[in-house]
Amino acid sequence: MLTNDELAKWDRESFFHPSTALGQFARGEAPQRIIKGGEGVFITDRDGNRLLDGFAGLYCVNVGYGRTEIADAIAKQAHELAYYHAYAGHGSEANITLAKMVMDRAPEGMARVYFGLGGSDANETNIKLIWYYNNILGRPAKKKIISRWRGYHGSGLMTGSLTGLELFHKKFDLPLAQVIHTEAPYHFRRPELTMSEADFVAHCVERLEALIAAEGADTIAAFIGEPVLGTGGIVPPPAGYWPAIQKVLDRHDILLIADEVVTGFGRLGSMFGSDHYGLKPDLITCAKGLTSAYAPLSATIVGNRMWEVLARGTDENGVLGHGWTYSAHPIGAAAGIANLKLIDKLGLVQNAGETGAYLNAAMRAAVGDHPNVGEVRGEGMLCAVELVADREGRQFFEPAQGIGAKVVAAMLRRGVIARAMPQGDVLGFAPPLCLTREEADQIVEVTSEAIAEVLG
Amino acid sequence: MLTNDELAKWDRESFFHPSTALGQFARGEAPQRIIKGGEGVFITDRDGNRLLDGFAGLYCVNVGYGRTEIADAIAKQAHELAYYHAYAGHGSEANITLAKMVMDRAPEGMARVYFGLGGSDANETNIKLIWYYNNILGRPAKKKIISRWRGYHGSGLMTGSLTGLELFHKKFDLPLAQVIHTEAPYHFRRPELTMSEADFVAHCVERLEALIAAEGADTIAAFIGEPVLGTGGIVPPPAGYWPAIQKVLDRHDILLIADEVVTGFGRLGSMFGSDHYGLKPDLITCAKGLTSAYAPLSATIVGNRMWEVLARGTDENGVLGHGWTYSAHPIGAAAGIANLKLIDKLGLVQNAGETGAYLNAAMRAAVGDHPNVGEVRGEGMLCAVELVADREGRQFFEPAQGIGAKVVAAMLRRGVIARAMPQGDVLGFAPPLCLTREEADQIVEVTSEAIAEVLG
Ligand SMILES: Cc1ncc(COP(=O)(O)O)c(C=O)c1O
Ligand SMILES: Cc1ncc(COP(=O)(O)O)c(C=O)c1O
Repeated sequence: MLTNDELAKWDRESFFHPSTALGQFARGEAPQRIIKGGEGVFITDRDGNRLLDGFAGLYCVNVGYGRTEIADAIAKQAHELAYYHAYAGHGSEANITLAKMVMDRAPEGMARVYFGLGGSDANETNIKLIWYYNNILGRPAKKKIISRWRGYHGSGLMTGSLTGLELFHKKFDLPLAQVIHTEAPYHFRRPELTMSEADFVAHCVERLEALIAAEGADTIAAFIGEPVLGTGGIVPPPAGYWPAIQKVLDRHDILLIADEVVTGFGRLGSMFGSDHYGLKPDLITCAKGLTSAYAPLSATIVGNRMWEVLARGTDENGVLGHGWTYSAHPIGAAAGIANLKLIDKLGLVQNAGETGAYLNAAMRAAVGDHPNVGEVRGEGMLCAVELVADREGRQFFEPAQGIGAKVVAAMLRRGVIARAMPQGDVLGFAPPLCLTREEADQIVEVTSEAIAEVLG
Repeated sequence: MLTNDELAKWDRESFFHPSTALGQFARGEAPQRIIKGGEGVFITDRDGNRLLDGFAGLYCVNVGYGRTEIADAIAKQAHELAYYHAYAGHGSEANITLAKMVMDRAPEGMARVYFGLGGSDANETNIKLIWYYNNILGRPAKKKIISRWRGYHGSGLMTGSLTGLELFHKKFDLPLAQVIHTEAPYHFRRPELTMSEADFVAHCVERLEALIAAEGADTIAAFIGEPVLGTGGIVPPPAGYWPAIQKVLDRHDILLIADEVVTGFGRLGSMFGSDHYGLKPDLITCAKGLTSAYAPLSATIVGNRMWEVLARGTDENGVLGHGWTYSAHPIGAAAGIANLKLIDKLGLVQNAGETGAYLNAAMRAAVGDHPNVGEVRGEGMLCAVELVADREGRQFFEPAQGIGAKVVAAMLRRGVIARAMPQGDVLGFAPPLCLTREEADQIVEVTSEAIAEVLG
């Protein structure tokens, strides 16, 4: 067995980690943690620490760690048929079965499922399909995509453009020209403190209408949004937001991509966020919850109105020039089947709703009145605590103070992982959907202590 | 157990296959094949057919099917720790160990390895890193990427733009503006039949120089190329091509991306194509051969000159805003470790060189003189047979005749899978690197028979 020291050295010398301060990590100035195993909501590292993972990896290990059912399914598939491609009508029992299971769970009006690897490449596929669709319909100018500030849709060139966060644009020359952004449905950060939720929804609609008018509806192909803003701050939409937006899109013949990478397969306490809020999407992006991250797999669920045009397009033009070598990888598909079965068997969609509501209520009760807590918000098994310098005047902290990161570090010392969301001082919680009330209590207690330590 | 009929129905009704004629597949007019298992170079489908896979999936199952060593490693990892993320300095024994193993095998001058999921997303990462690099160096205008016609680098929006094949551009509005294409190093398709290889290399250099002069070297960031053109026709470069190109790039301070998704880890009979042909890349793209497709994993190997600037960039700007949730997935990493060990243990790099040379020689001997064979070419365990209407005048067939596809279909009826490459009538062969001489003989015999059946 390798000693930790050897591994630690190889890590610093060889491994280019994502979302990391590369220089500091290489010089040993930024933290390193080598994970060894996990069970339920807990992970253990090679130094013997056992941590309650209040963010389920990157809100993806929805069924929790160490699920033997999924590991066994992966092992069986690896021995039977680890890989064959899915191009040109090839399949395997695993990926066909999963396609059927996804369609059985999908909202109404969906036609087919395309499998990729992660959320970013699924959104990349979506944009390609949308451009193809409008070319087949003879609308070559209808190509721009509207996204929201604070949306997160990936970190590729196009998907990082869709993302509306500075960290993913700065120094990368993003967003690309085809992507335009509109107001985030983030009521806590409304422009005027006096705006009610209803006023703010009207304001979001107005901004969207103005953008469409300025650009011309005949240049706009689609609108992309997460049912609940995720990485941009974990923000459920204000009441009535989605129906109001849907109306605008319908009026201008603009497609809707529901990015359900975080919300798909149970996190909100319903199978899909689209059902939860009454969205009528043309494309649904899925990843994380599809396999609970046990193996890489994403899915793009394509709605009827697009499918018909795509099928016609290939009748007219031959095979669709799109695919990844590992599209519909059998190992990912086997993990997906076992994962969806486990979600049903353990009733995790229901638990996400119930224990998620408990977590949110307990969090609000514990820290909601703290003078530096601006808002406690959440939906299903998502919860956020937004920290502010002054609660009454809604004064934010200086970003350079890194208040959110400091609170999260204080929580980590107490054995609980939360995430300091990248823009603003927002503590994010997205535990595995199997969280118990006792574990929720532990998260809340540690959050409360850490806020007290950092902010008094 | 599911009956084939049920699966077949679900497949047609639910599954959106990559690179498929969607309408025809849905209506049952395009073929369907459900793969059940494999061993060595053979796969079996659910109708009981046993096929010799002369293309190793999509030139990726390099060690062959049914390798228990890799399946066991995947199973072990799935039970120990299926997933934890690699963001912000997190790792696992598997991904750190694989990073070290990749660096041990990499060409000289390489600094770090970033892990993604497939070849397309690895090239996407490359372009992001290159743009960031030139922004840190204060050269905001130096951003264009030169690719070659007939290159294949993926099928995303940027990576499909890098790809120089019509199928991947048409109806998708590609290539994007930042990508420009130059001459393919495809001597058989040289503009003048009288051009020697040396003349043709000089011609390619001249075209590249002219493009750089027209655009301005200060607008061009990088050049991307496969050591051996793959999907564009399986074309080894004319002698002296890479050193001549490398000189031009050095003179204009243009970075080189070696896309070794096909050639990395042994296919040419050497560990990397860069070593094989003396390229000095700044970035090396790896995927397929890294895990032999047993699990999705890609790698971007970053050279010293870029790494230093990237590290400085994050010192100045904070964490790098780039990452996939499934970057460095432990299941992929475990598969990669077992795969690289197996390649060493079985001597597959050497066998790729030796049995590959045997396959190429046998193919040339069997069909090289056929009046419709324009060229038999290859390198290592890659081989191509280019079919022409007339050999002397180098007249190509009409694409609508689908001659390549017909020969491949005739081979399939004889139990051997080859690939009709997408542009031109090129039969492509890229068997697993464990191919034996007897199996090579079978491929050659069936190719010869199929050509005779279709073309006389
Ligand atoms: C809503 C949403 N979409 C897309 C993505 C990108 O997924 P991936 O990291 O798998 O590429 C994420 C990742 O966090 C996400 O939260
Ligand atoms: C040279 C090369 N680069 C990139 C890719 C794209 O890889 P993937 O299909 O895994 O996205 C391929 C796939 O065939 C390839 O051959």
